[in-house]
Amino acid sequence: MDTPFADISIEQSIHNLLNEYADCLDSERLEDWPELFLENGSYFVSTRDNLEAGLDGGYWMYYTSQAMMRDRVTSLRHINTYNKYYCRHLITNTKVKPQDDGSFKANSNFLLVQIGFEGKTEGIRAGEYRDTVVMFEGELKFKEKLVVVDTFHSDTTLIKPL
Amino acid sequence: MDTPFADISIEQSIHNLLNEYADCLDSERLEDWPELFLENGSYFVSTRDNLEAGLDGGYWMYYTSQAMMRDRVTSLRHINTYNKYYCRHLITNTKVKPQDDGSFKANSNFLLVQIGFEGKTEGIRAGEYRDTVVMFEGELKFKEKLVVVDTFHSDTTLIKPL
Amino acid sequence: MDTPFADISIEQSIHNLLNEYADCLDSERLEDWPELFLENGSYFVSTRDNLEAGLDGGYWMYYTSQAMMRDRVTSLRHINTYNKYYCRHLITNTKVKPQDDGSFKANSNFLLVQIGFEGKTEGIRAGEYRDTVVMFEGELKFKEKLVVVDTFHSDTTLIKPL
Repeated sequence: MDTPFADISIEQSIHNLLNEYADCLDSERLEDWPELFLENGSYFVSTRDNLEAGLDGGYWMYYTSQAMMRDRVTSLRHINTYNKYYCRHLITNTKVKPQDDGSFKANSNFLLVQIGFEGKTEGIRAGEYRDTVVMFEGELKFKEKLVVVDTFHSDTTLIKPL
Repeated sequence: MDTPFADISIEQSIHNLLNEYADCLDSERLEDWPELFLENGSYFVSTRDNLEAGLDGGYWMYYTSQAMMRDRVTSLRHINTYNKYYCRHLITNTKVKPQDDGSFKANSNFLLVQIGFEGKTEGIRAGEYRDTVVMFEGELKFKEKLVVVDTFHSDTTLIKPL
Repeated sequence: MDTPFADISIEQSIHNLLNEYADCLDSERLEDWPELFLENGSYFVSTRDNLEAGLDGGYWMYYTSQAMMRDRVTSLRHINTYNKYYCRHLITNTKVKPQDDGSFKANSNFLLVQIGFEGKTEGIRAGEYRDTVVMFEGELKFKEKLVVVDTFHSDTTLIKPL
């Protein structure tokens, strides 16, 4: 009931970061996506069944620096060929927990709708974001983002980050 | 951390407006829907591919006054015949930006689930709301609402606003 | 605009309760689910068409105490056999209204994605939570939770709470 004012504000800031994350991908501003991470930040995509089985492998994406993420974007822009698609993220149920080291754990549920260029839904993915967020030079950044995919049976190749 | 109180409050008020928008449609209170707009407010529905191609046409709905919206409701209640359906809106990722003229830009992602009267999902639409919101006589109203539909290949006729 | 500070905080607390509700089910922590209710709290699942027709029957689940909910969990853990599935809740559009008796009405929209153990989406349910929430010994609890299912044509048996 008497949550300190500061806590409300950090929650709002984390929502803003998540919204910006979604918007970079939904608006196809891929180049802006790595900028939301620390220079040595990590981005992992794994499946729920692997993680629950304790299997530390089979990552769909495994990037341990901003540079690797930029590389992915360059690849998508200039090397890979694939059917273009729209995407739309719905991020909900964000739970923020301050950590002793000054960082924040923020877990959210997400739904990702992928839409082909003919305007038909091609896939719906559900899962969880398990994020570690830190304040860096006055801005919140992802230190680590782990995307846990519930819908891990994939009909399509993984193209853009989730 | 020290977001001014007013800023938190305006975001909350915009969420309330969006929730009321969804509820008017989800609860079939169609007559209340135009009341959320200014008298000379606008409501547009267009498709993402048209907008991205710079084509200013092909609007699915194009209303430039509350009166036109009321007309639509009257038509739905008394003139059109169609298979009734339930709908359910999920509005997320709302990003609020105050404008110089005192209005607010508020963009959100949405998912709209349409359910036939036999209880089966008949369609899922995803897209973005691009709203301009103003304070009018102590209440927030839509000055303009542009619905950008990602899932623009439609299996069903457009009946109710999105 | 000048919502008292306490009201913002209660909204945040209600979001936290809803997030915890979703997480108990999504993370398969079923034993924690009844703890979110008062000892004599109620949990009902009904369908939108029944409720709108004024039919007070045909509940999918009808529990009027925490003990009945615990019983359900025991049954799921030890008695029922069913194909295991993941679930993922998206809870949005929460509207909080303080009541004269000190409780809060909180209505939300939800989307529930059910995923089979092969990673494919098996079902998507949409609906509304109509909750009554009270403060009890310093914590928010559900006094009553009514789940109204829009997608009431069910392809699968109802297993876990919604």
